[in-house]
Amino acid sequence: MTNYEEMSPAKVRELIREQTITGPTAGMSKGFAQANLVILKKEHAYDFLLFCQRNPKSCPLLDVTEVGSFKPNKIATNANILTDVPKYRIYKDGVFTEEVLDASDYWDEDMVCFLIGCSFTFETPLLAADIPIRHIEEKCNVPMYKTSIACEKAGVFEGPMVVSMRPMTYENAIRAVQITTPLPAVHGAPIHIGDPSQIGIQDIDKPDFGDSVTIKDGEIPVFWPCGVTPQAVAMQSKPSIMITHAPGCMFIGDIKDTTLSIF
Amino acid sequence: MTNYEEMSPAKVRELIREQTITGPTAGMSKGFAQANLVILKKEHAYDFLLFCQRNPKSCPLLDVTEVGSFKPNKIATNANILTDVPKYRIYKDGVFTEEVLDASDYWDEDMVCFLIGCSFTFETPLLAADIPIRHIEEKCNVPMYKTSIACEKAGVFEGPMVVSMRPMTYENAIRAVQITTPLPAVHGAPIHIGDPSQIGIQDIDKPDFGDSVTIKDGEIPVFWPCGVTPQAVAMQSKPSIMITHAPGCMFIGDIKDTTLSIF
Repeated sequence: MTNYEEMSPAKVRELIREQTITGPTAGMSKGFAQANLVILKKEHAYDFLLFCQRNPKSCPLLDVTEVGSFKPNKIATNANILTDVPKYRIYKDGVFTEEVLDASDYWDEDMVCFLIGCSFTFETPLLAADIPIRHIEEKCNVPMYKTSIACEKAGVFEGPMVVSMRPMTYENAIRAVQITTPLPAVHGAPIHIGDPSQIGIQDIDKPDFGDSVTIKDGEIPVFWPCGVTPQAVAMQSKPSIMITHAPGCMFIGDIKDTTLSIF
Repeated sequence: MTNYEEMSPAKVRELIREQTITGPTAGMSKGFAQANLVILKKEHAYDFLLFCQRNPKSCPLLDVTEVGSFKPNKIATNANILTDVPKYRIYKDGVFTEEVLDASDYWDEDMVCFLIGCSFTFETPLLAADIPIRHIEEKCNVPMYKTSIACEKAGVFEGPMVVSMRPMTYENAIRAVQITTPLPAVHGAPIHIGDPSQIGIQDIDKPDFGDSVTIKDGEIPVFWPCGVTPQAVAMQSKPSIMITHAPGCMFIGDIKDTTLSIF
């Protein structure tokens, strides 16, 4: 099996561009920041930028391109955001219409790309602290859930916060809070630990996005705000068109995750 | 002398509104967040929001009002941003034209208010750690300087970073880094310590905004990014109209500074 973990972001992006990699990117290019993607027309860009400012835990912005540019120059060189994500989702009028491996056909000159920090980034320091990451162990996508936590509205954008979940021992949950706290650019500390029903999750075995993972005896679920939130919000807010990454299939930038720590 | 330090934000805002307080707010309503103010027309709001996103150290946003609203509801209740700041500056086409105690006459229905975190907020935990704040001791305004550090451009907005300066002992400088690091919403850690010429400051005794303070033997200047940055940027970017606070004369919100810590 190819060792994507040790591969450079540029090389992984190349394999994505030629559609060799078409699935979740967790664990790839260890130590480099991964990002969620939202592409909108300029007419919705102010509202969305404000939405991110008002909901920094779920939508911490790493990069915003100029209008008409698909090059996220702040976090990567020689990247094309329309081809360098393994899988895209197209939303028209709030409806998820298709999943594609190349978003170029949907691009318009009046579009803006928003790159949002991703929790895969902090999995590197969690692994370094010997905290096992279940979805990496089980070679599947991280489980993600819509919650009853309402995002703060901005213009047309409103909807529920989406969270990602990692089960761990109680001791590791405390350590994970410590490790992720100085990383607000990739969601920071967990938003919830324990009882899923407290945040409106009815069945922990049925995630709204991604895959279900095993929760072992003696483990509790730990929930982080998730960059898939804009997709749940898009369904409710119905912009004419919105291009996003497919959940778990991220853009991998050239910046090291250590540079995102406030320490 | 009235004890403004222990007075509630609502009461201080009332004294400001009736123009009893018309000067710098450092040290007032101890423990509550203070904010810089920028008011722009909607046509410049997207560029400015993007400017803040790209320059989070100098422009950490605490609140953005709806278009046409002068009520910063996220950080204060029953406040009027046009009357509750001690002193305002009006910039027309990039030129500072006048200083007023009430900005109501300059308000337009298509304006948006941006409230930006202020370093006065972290003076409370510095004082709690027995770190003396010179401009409070000398009862003057904090010294602020334009630097040679360029902000990242966004649309029409570009220009130099402005910094505030507090002299302290070497030991206290280290402690101040530790104390302000978890407070990115109010500028976070210093941007520079020591030699002012390294960041383009020619004469430490001649600040561009505020007052000069004494630097004692054995002390070094410690520089933080400053929310006056948009005023230096406005001069260069020339929006048709921009209303700001006068340097040092801040808006005092109802949120406790402790809620801004990422810890």
